[in-house]
Amino acid sequence: MDEFAFIRDLLAPLTRGAPGAYGLGDDAATISPKPGHDLVVTADAVVGGVHFRLDDPPGRIAQKALRVNLSDLAAKGAEPAGIVMALCVPAGTGDDWLRAFVAGLAGDLGCYGVPLLGGDTTSTPGPLTVAITAFGEVQAGTMIRRAGAQAGDLICVSGTIGDAALGLAGDPRLTPSAQAFARDRYQVPQPRLALGRALRGAARAGIDISDGLVADVGHICEQSGLGAVIEADSVPLSAAVREWLAADARNLQRALTGGDDYELAFCLAPERASELGRLAAAGEVPVAIIGRMGPGSGVKVRDAAGREIALASGGYRHLQA
Amino acid sequence: MDEFAFIRDLLAPLTRGAPGAYGLGDDAATISPKPGHDLVVTADAVVGGVHFRLDDPPGRIAQKALRVNLSDLAAKGAEPAGIVMALCVPAGTGDDWLRAFVAGLAGDLGCYGVPLLGGDTTSTPGPLTVAITAFGEVQAGTMIRRAGAQAGDLICVSGTIGDAALGLAGDPRLTPSAQAFARDRYQVPQPRLALGRALRGAARAGIDISDGLVADVGHICEQSGLGAVIEADSVPLSAAVREWLAADARNLQRALTGGDDYELAFCLAPERASELGRLAAAGEVPVAIIGRMGPGSGVKVRDAAGREIALASGGYRHLQA
Repeated sequence: MDEFAFIRDLLAPLTRGAPGAYGLGDDAATISPKPGHDLVVTADAVVGGVHFRLDDPPGRIAQKALRVNLSDLAAKGAEPAGIVMALCVPAGTGDDWLRAFVAGLAGDLGCYGVPLLGGDTTSTPGPLTVAITAFGEVQAGTMIRRAGAQAGDLICVSGTIGDAALGLAGDPRLTPSAQAFARDRYQVPQPRLALGRALRGAARAGIDISDGLVADVGHICEQSGLGAVIEADSVPLSAAVREWLAADARNLQRALTGGDDYELAFCLAPERASELGRLAAAGEVPVAIIGRMGPGSGVKVRDAAGREIALASGGYRHLQA
Repeated sequence: MDEFAFIRDLLAPLTRGAPGAYGLGDDAATISPKPGHDLVVTADAVVGGVHFRLDDPPGRIAQKALRVNLSDLAAKGAEPAGIVMALCVPAGTGDDWLRAFVAGLAGDLGCYGVPLLGGDTTSTPGPLTVAITAFGEVQAGTMIRRAGAQAGDLICVSGTIGDAALGLAGDPRLTPSAQAFARDRYQVPQPRLALGRALRGAARAGIDISDGLVADVGHICEQSGLGAVIEADSVPLSAAVREWLAADARNLQRALTGGDDYELAFCLAPERASELGRLAAAGEVPVAIIGRMGPGSGVKVRDAAGREIALASGGYRHLQA
């Protein structure tokens, strides 16, 4: 299958009839946000051997490449509107592999109602690389920012934290079901789009957890000019990660600083605490309060006794500025 | 230099104060086309060992990565408005290399008045890969398409054809100045933005020459449902390529089918032939008529005697459908 057959036969159906995609038959696409709306643009690349394992199922690689971008849109409260994809394919990649990759992408684009608008397919002497740029819409001027948190705001997270760190590291001592759960969480993130919708006009700041909980809350701190305290006991953990901590308590640090969970972290004014149930219901995902924003800078993590938990450089690396 | 220092110290200045870039301090950018305008979106990735040589000067690699995208905007008659960049950097890439890369990019973004709005920086076990998505604006519904050519239209090209094919192939028999000229043409394309502006409302179809003259005119044929005849003697050639043909006449085929020239090919109604001088002046580049669109399908190339020149499969590969 050459480049042009691949585009015409496999990718063109993914445009889902979007008129601005021109059936992938032009040099460029056109996109026009609804009147009174901003286009939100985010770009994330995933690279074989870095963001996924080379032997991961091809459909899951496609899903991850898409979903890490949709997760950014979710964190910004944006409604997905389309993607463009630059796909760098190693020589010798078989047609079956490509078909499975596209099937995974097609399933997700259908599920999320997102059209493929354009892109580029090229060969590479390196590993498979998928660089997606995703577009979303927000009412003009309402994108949820990293900046905007205020001292006293509640820090909240969706879902459970540390699953992807466990999925990436693996631990043969755990039950098979815990290992499978964590691997799935690492391979196939769940973009929290419904929660992001519910956070419009409610969250003062937000981010998705891609670098790790501590680092990403740190990004909110930096951009908001504040510090944060996270109560470790309040961080929601799955049964799999609780097994992992039982095997070695030092894994707490890996759970709090590991990347790729793709849950949302966001800041709520304290008087909105009563809305957590509504947000969780709308987002179809549990939401927990894990700490507070305050003056200063950087992120401190405290144990149940109020003692600061020292984190290795990995967790604090991006916060030392 | 870690990822965050790289973004903060080297990339953030490239936002050129664009408010929607948020100083590269957020997960996403916002962009809003002017009222009554469409956003034109194009994505092209360049990969080390495929689109540039690994020992090419880093600033030139950045320029090429940007310019191949600006060239698409030029072909569509769009005014550049910004880019996002996913940059995959091999482990061990030195700070000096990164600084030179960014300096090349910064120079071009300044020259073309284009802000960096966002992106992603990641490591790769493969070669340097730069996936840029570029945004431009056109008045709503006026993007120059590959579709739209009519039988009888003049096929025109800017600049000279085949220089990049020579630059990539190299030929030690040629004069040093011819070799240097061709190498420069291959490494640093000239996006024909001013010509693209002049073509708004004038060209019935357009494309930039990235796959090769014959293949790209073939793309116009496919999308317009027509065929094309190119007169080989009318195709504008540089002195360097004329030297190359003198060394071996078979190089004509390589010049007509080689990629990466990044000139514009476009179709004009015959009654607009008198406007060529105006278009060339506005575009600050020579413009030549090289053939005509007609009924049928595919591209035929004829010599001065009217005989069809047989092209090897490379030139016709994309046209056999």
